[in-house]
Amino acid sequence: MYTISKTVDGEFDAVLDRTVEALDAEGFGVLTEIDVQATLEAKLDAEFRRYRILGACNPPLAHEALGEELELGALLPCNVVVYETDDGEVRVSAVDPETMLSVVGNDAVDEIAAEVAGRLERALDGVAAAASA
Amino acid sequence: MYTISKTVDGEFDAVLDRTVEALDAEGFGVLTEIDVQATLEAKLDAEFRRYRILGACNPPLAHEALGEELELGALLPCNVVVYETDDGEVRVSAVDPETMLSVVGNDAVDEIAAEVAGRLERALDGVAAAASA
Repeated sequence: MYTISKTVDGEFDAVLDRTVEALDAEGFGVLTEIDVQATLEAKLDAEFRRYRILGACNPPLAHEALGEELELGALLPCNVVVYETDDGEVRVSAVDPETMLSVVGNDAVDEIAAEVAGRLERALDGVAAAASA
Repeated sequence: MYTISKTVDGEFDAVLDRTVEALDAEGFGVLTEIDVQATLEAKLDAEFRRYRILGACNPPLAHEALGEELELGALLPCNVVVYETDDGEVRVSAVDPETMLSVVGNDAVDEIAAEVAGRLERALDGVAAAASA
């Protein structure tokens, strides 16, 4: 398991908006956004499901982590993907920072990863709660 | 080791440009770019070294990988960081896709990761060769 996920009912754009809001509530700004569907259509003329990759960053925690391990930017920001499932639902998955950052082998980074994981889990709980409200 | 790296002489902006060109030569477009220095200054009023995170994507390989493993977008694009070292050189580091994608546990993805790793290594070799030319 390399992601933390929730599958929710709802319209894709609405879930995407709720995801951005839930990340914001946990201190993550969305610094990058890739529209995978549009990119694959533009570059390969290929059809693909609706799929976004959001690059989420909590600046104080990113700053602290880079202070511990300068090379760590290669693993930042934390990706959160939002995509349509085959069943017509919407899946929201965040990369699991504890799995990803375990490759670094730095105890101080592991502590930060645990903090980030907790925040991402709460953000996904928020998306799921809003969907069922 | 979770990155493939080269440390090169040269001016930061010139190395950054050469990195983008070398990635392009191996079929990677830069879909996202985070200016870490500017972001930390804007969000935290913190000083930081020059540091960019480029999100590099080879569309045919990304498409193939997503076909094998839909959740994989959480690990895309491949990050390449360019930053100033304490010694006044410039370091260029790409996330090692074989380390990162090993967490997926999918043989077909491992094959694609090996192809991506080879291309990133050649791109970094190109940056280093241009720096020493």
